[in-house]
Amino acid sequence: MLRSCVSRLRTPGVLCGRLGGASPLARDSRPLPRSYSSEVVHMDHSLPNPSWSKDMRLIFDQFMKKSEDGSWKRLPSYKFTSSKRLEEVKIFFPDAKPVKEESLSQARLFPRSLEEGLGFEYAMFHNHVENRTACILQGGPYLQGIPGFLHGGAIATMIDSTVGMCAVLTGGAVMTANLNINFRRPIPLCSVVVINSQLDKIEGRKLFVSCNVQSVDEKTLYSEATKHSWNPGPAGRNTKSLVLPQHGNLGKDRNGEERKGTQTQGLSNSRWQQSTRTLRIFFFRCLGGSVG
Amino acid sequence: MLRSCVSRLRTPGVLCGRLGGASPLARDSRPLPRSYSSEVVHMDHSLPNPSWSKDMRLIFDQFMKKSEDGSWKRLPSYKFTSSKRLEEVKIFFPDAKPVKEESLSQARLFPRSLEEGLGFEYAMFHNHVENRTACILQGGPYLQGIPGFLHGGAIATMIDSTVGMCAVLTGGAVMTANLNINFRRPIPLCSVVVINSQLDKIEGRKLFVSCNVQSVDEKTLYSEATKHSWNPGPAGRNTKSLVLPQHGNLGKDRNGEERKGTQTQGLSNSRWQQSTRTLRIFFFRCLGGSVG
Repeated sequence: MLRSCVSRLRTPGVLCGRLGGASPLARDSRPLPRSYSSEVVHMDHSLPNPSWSKDMRLIFDQFMKKSEDGSWKRLPSYKFTSSKRLEEVKIFFPDAKPVKEESLSQARLFPRSLEEGLGFEYAMFHNHVENRTACILQGGPYLQGIPGFLHGGAIATMIDSTVGMCAVLTGGAVMTANLNINFRRPIPLCSVVVINSQLDKIEGRKLFVSCNVQSVDEKTLYSEATKHSWNPGPAGRNTKSLVLPQHGNLGKDRNGEERKGTQTQGLSNSRWQQSTRTLRIFFFRCLGGSVG
Repeated sequence: MLRSCVSRLRTPGVLCGRLGGASPLARDSRPLPRSYSSEVVHMDHSLPNPSWSKDMRLIFDQFMKKSEDGSWKRLPSYKFTSSKRLEEVKIFFPDAKPVKEESLSQARLFPRSLEEGLGFEYAMFHNHVENRTACILQGGPYLQGIPGFLHGGAIATMIDSTVGMCAVLTGGAVMTANLNINFRRPIPLCSVVVINSQLDKIEGRKLFVSCNVQSVDEKTLYSEATKHSWNPGPAGRNTKSLVLPQHGNLGKDRNGEERKGTQTQGLSNSRWQQSTRTLRIFFFRCLGGSVG
């Protein structure tokens, strides 16, 4: 099943969003979730909408400018994923409690579950050369924790999404094993921040990604985080490491020194590569994005 | 201002929810958020509703049974907090970017931002004697991460809320400094889990709370987490420690040993106590609850 899935997912255009073709759901025959039109289901939510502030549009335009030479790429994002994907996930979690079909037909990707302008307004960009993913985020009024500021869980949600995307796109299929966040300052409600994540290293099946959350002008550091993930593939595969040149950094650490991790990337046999490619696309689709 | 606030907050009934009297917002004169009736604004969302599953109602009833002798207490929970609270928060973050009045009038507590049955359905209970807070959670279909399972950010949100509540109710006013989560298994969408948190220790202005996320039958451990918080009060206060008897535990650690932290509690001078009491109530209200 996975092989046929890969074949289908690799079909040009299948994984591209509004900028690149039909959405992942365009070819699904499943019933659409209740009360939403086909147009809404297929909408790429990582594009500007009327709720975006001037700051949000400015930083979006900056990243689109960076994308012109192909170094960065905008990642489409959708609210819905096909319930067919559930069958594929079950391969990895066969003992999990089954979910009712009715609930699955209603399911939405959590960061896209609130209506336009009220919750998470965000767009992600990925740099394949530097193994970095950036997320621009405008946190709406429904994300409040203490009055006037974003809830810690809302920040954690977007950190988890961004570093997860970075890990998937640079290191293959992943599941989060650990998420460690240092909250330095509360983020004002409705302000715009940039989440910068970078794959630090891959050790066997473990992936290490770090990130920070900064103001648009980069003068305020709101949060820092690390995430350890694991690759749910076969154990004991052959791996060796490559030390890659380090591109960019995530600012300075607590001691004021530049954060530059050693970057290694596992190489694997052809079967594992095929499996990883499958999972990589699969998990990326789960996250509501596209490898384009 | 804080003193008058304390006086008002201590008024019997002001902080009690549906079970104990009027909600915190009942006496506010501010305009109600748009498109919501007064009844909705004042609704205590920690009570059963038609979307709750059989498992959710069963575990809720178990905790209500435990509450009959006063050892446990259900914590009311509301969607909205008064924008007046923003002025009080500004005392602690005077340099924060101001938020537009229009956005504040729309603001909702993040874990209560989704409609009934679609997002976080939860109720919290607190045990003042054992310094523990438990949260029963039914994660709705709008909280999806990978198909069929809760998003890691949704889990982080409820962990942050629960351990935050535990810290506030047992240790005074707090702001999260660090949140460290180990994800052991994905949580099936629409299933019911119990988040158990416990204050481990207080060291000066630092509070350490740990928690786990388990299935209702306690047979499946989904996640474990620790949270370090700090108390935004005056530095250099007089403190001494008391070692308290340990009540309960959070299961077993990785080595199969019972997790039992040493519990210390700071004692402080009367001015600090008054300030802490103010902040404790204040932050609890920010979190959408009531000290009852």
